Amino acid sequence: MINNKVKYDLHMSNFKEQLRRVKAFVFDVDGVLSEQTMSLDTDGNLIRTSSIRDGYALQRAVNKNYPVGIITGGEMTNVLKRYQKLGVNDIYLGSTNKRSDIIDFLKKYRIEASDVLYMGDDLPDLEVMKMVGFPTCPDDAVVEVKQISRYVSNFTGGNGCVRDVIEQVLRLNKHWV
Amino acid sequence: MINNKVKYDLHMSNFKEQLRRVKAFVFDVDGVLSEQTMSLDTDGNLIRTSSIRDGYALQRAVNKNYPVGIITGGEMTNVLKRYQKLGVNDIYLGSTNKRSDIIDFLKKYRIEASDVLYMGDDLPDLEVMKMVGFPTCPDDAVVEVKQISRYVSNFTGGNGCVRDVIEQVLRLNKHWV
Amino acid sequence: MINNKVKYDLHMSNFKEQLRRVKAFVFDVDGVLSEQTMSLDTDGNLIRTSSIRDGYALQRAVNKNYPVGIITGGEMTNVLKRYQKLGVNDIYLGSTNKRSDIIDFLKKYRIEASDVLYMGDDLPDLEVMKMVGFPTCPDDAVVEVKQISRYVSNFTGGNGCVRDVIEQVLRLNKHWV
Amino acid sequence: MINNKVKYDLHMSNFKEQLRRVKAFVFDVDGVLSEQTMSLDTDGNLIRTSSIRDGYALQRAVNKNYPVGIITGGEMTNVLKRYQKLGVNDIYLGSTNKRSDIIDFLKKYRIEASDVLYMGDDLPDLEVMKMVGFPTCPDDAVVEVKQISRYVSNFTGGNGCVRDVIEQVLRLNKHWV
Repeated sequence: MINNKVKYDLHMSNFKEQLRRVKAFVFDVDGVLSEQTMSLDTDGNLIRTSSIRDGYALQRAVNKNYPVGIITGGEMTNVLKRYQKLGVNDIYLGSTNKRSDIIDFLKKYRIEASDVLYMGDDLPDLEVMKMVGFPTCPDDAVVEVKQISRYVSNFTGGNGCVRDVIEQVLRLNKHWV
Repeated sequence: MINNKVKYDLHMSNFKEQLRRVKAFVFDVDGVLSEQTMSLDTDGNLIRTSSIRDGYALQRAVNKNYPVGIITGGEMTNVLKRYQKLGVNDIYLGSTNKRSDIIDFLKKYRIEASDVLYMGDDLPDLEVMKMVGFPTCPDDAVVEVKQISRYVSNFTGGNGCVRDVIEQVLRLNKHWV
Repeated sequence: MINNKVKYDLHMSNFKEQLRRVKAFVFDVDGVLSEQTMSLDTDGNLIRTSSIRDGYALQRAVNKNYPVGIITGGEMTNVLKRYQKLGVNDIYLGSTNKRSDIIDFLKKYRIEASDVLYMGDDLPDLEVMKMVGFPTCPDDAVVEVKQISRYVSNFTGGNGCVRDVIEQVLRLNKHWV
Repeated sequence: MINNKVKYDLHMSNFKEQLRRVKAFVFDVDGVLSEQTMSLDTDGNLIRTSSIRDGYALQRAVNKNYPVGIITGGEMTNVLKRYQKLGVNDIYLGSTNKRSDIIDFLKKYRIEASDVLYMGDDLPDLEVMKMVGFPTCPDDAVVEVKQISRYVSNFTGGNGCVRDVIEQVLRLNKHWV
C-alpha cells in the first residue's frame, strides 16, 4: 500500500480532486454539527441547534459505508441518541483527548489518518486537525482553525457545513444521487 | 374538462398569471413549513421553528376551501396537533413514499397533479416536484430543488415561504383580503 | 379639551414631534412583542422569543404611569405571567375582536384613540391601526400594515421594535433617563 | 504601588496596549453573556442563548487565575449552575445595585477598579461602566453604553463578545495558547 500522506497543497481545484480520496469522516459537535450558540433550559441543560440537512448527509454517508465518527468533549446523551438514530455508531462523548480517540477510530476501521476528513471549529480541535489529511472547518471557525484548514465551508456550524463536505466527497464518488 | 397540464414556461410574469389556476397546496415540513435547523431538547426530541404568518395563511387557504396537504418523512405528533388546529386535515406523517401519498391526496379531492402547488426543499422532494404543475421552493432549498422549481420564494424555510405562495394564489383569486 | 385627532402627516420630523403627545401604548404579541417565528416543543406548545430590552422599556413606561395594553388572538398563560411580572395589567388574551378590546382599554383610562400608539404586524391588526393616532409597525411587518403605519421601526418583531417606540416617546417627555 | 487610574484615551492602538493591564473581568448576563432575545417556555420561564466559545474563554481566564465576576439583575439558578461549572465563583444574582456588588468584588480580590474590564449592554450598566478602567460592550449595545465604552466588540451579545475581550487580554499576557 502506498503511503498517501497528502502534501498541504492549498490550490483549491487540486484539493477538490483530492477530496475523492476521503475514506472516512470525523466531526466535532459544538460549533460544527451544532451551532456555536446554545440555549439553557430551566434545569440548566444545554439545548443545541443543528441542521436537518447535515443529518440527511450523515445518514447517506453511513449507508454508503463510509466510517463516520463524532468526537466531543461534552457528555450529552441526547446527542448520542440523535446520531445513533441516523446510523452513526462511533460517538466519543466526554473526550478529554481527541487525539487518542481518533487513533482508536482509525485502528477500528484500518484507515490511515491521511484518508480522513475532519471538521472542527475551535482550539481543542487543532491537534487532531494537524493529524488528518483533510482538515476542514465551518465559516465561523476561529482564526487558528481556519489557518490550518484545507477547506473552509461557506456554511456555518450547525447550518449545513457538515453536509457541504460530505456531499462533495460523495458526489465525486457517485455516491450522492 | 380541458387537460390543463402546464408547460414549463419559466417566464416569470407568465408564471404569476398561471398561479391563478392552482387548486390545491401540498407542503413538506422540515426546511419548508419549519426551518432547516432544529434544536434538541434534553430528551433528544427535535424542536422545530416555524412562522406564525405561514400558519395564518394555511388557515386562510383552508377556510377558502383549498385542499391543503402536508407530507413529511418525520413522525412528530406535535406537528400533527399544531396543523390540525389550523384546520389542515391531510397530514401524511412518516411518509416513505411521497409519490404515493400525493396520489392518495389527488384522488381524495379529484384534482389533477397539474393543478397542485408543491413546495419542497431537499432531494426527497424531487420526485413529487416533477409530478405537479407548480413545483416551488424556499430561498434556502438545495440546488437540485431550485433547478426544477418554477418559483423560488424570497423567504427561507420556516420564515414565510409558505405564506408567500399561498398569498399570491389567493390574491389572484380574490380570496386573500 | 381640544379634539386632537391627528392628521396623517407623513413628514417624519413632524411625526417625531407629535410623538410627544402619545399618552398610552398598545401592542400585539406575535410578530411585535415576539418574533414572527416560533418553536414547537414536544407537547405541541409554542415557544415565543422576545427581547429583554423591550421588557425593560415596558416596565419603564408602566413606572412612568403610561397605560400599557397588550392584545392578542392567542391564549398563552405564560405570556400573561411574563408581562404581568413587568407590571402590564391590561392584557387581552384570546381576543377575537381587537377593536372592542381597545375601546374597553380607552374607556378604562379615559383616553382618546388619537393619543394611543399601537404597534401591529399583520392583517388582523389593520382595523385597530386605522382607529388610533399613532399606528406603527416593526421592520418585518406585512406590506399592508407598513402602508398604513406612520412609523416603521428599524427593528424587527421580538427584537427591539417595542423599545424603539417607547423610548422615543419617553425621551421626548423626559421620562427615559 | 502606582495609582494606575487610566486616562480615557480613545486612540485604539493605545487602548490595545493598555489591555495588557487588565487584572479582572466582570460581565453582565442579559445582552452580554446571553443574547438580548429570550424564549419563553410553557411555564413562563426564560430560556437564554449563549456562546460555547464564551464559555471556553471564561474557563481559560479562571484557570489562568484572573478573577471573573458575573453581575445580573435576574435571579436564574440555571445560569448560576452553568457558570459555576465553568469555574466562575463570583456570581451576583438579583443584583439591585451593581455598584455595591462590584465594590464587594474589588475588595475580595484587592484589585482597583481601574484594572477591571467590564462588559455591559444597557442603561443599568452605565454607572458601573463609569467606575472601571476598561468599560466595553457588544456590537448591539444601546447607544448610551457604546458612547462610554472604550472598546466595542464586533460580536453581539451571546455570540462571542465575551471571548473577544478575554482572548485579547490573555493573548497580550501569553495566557491564551
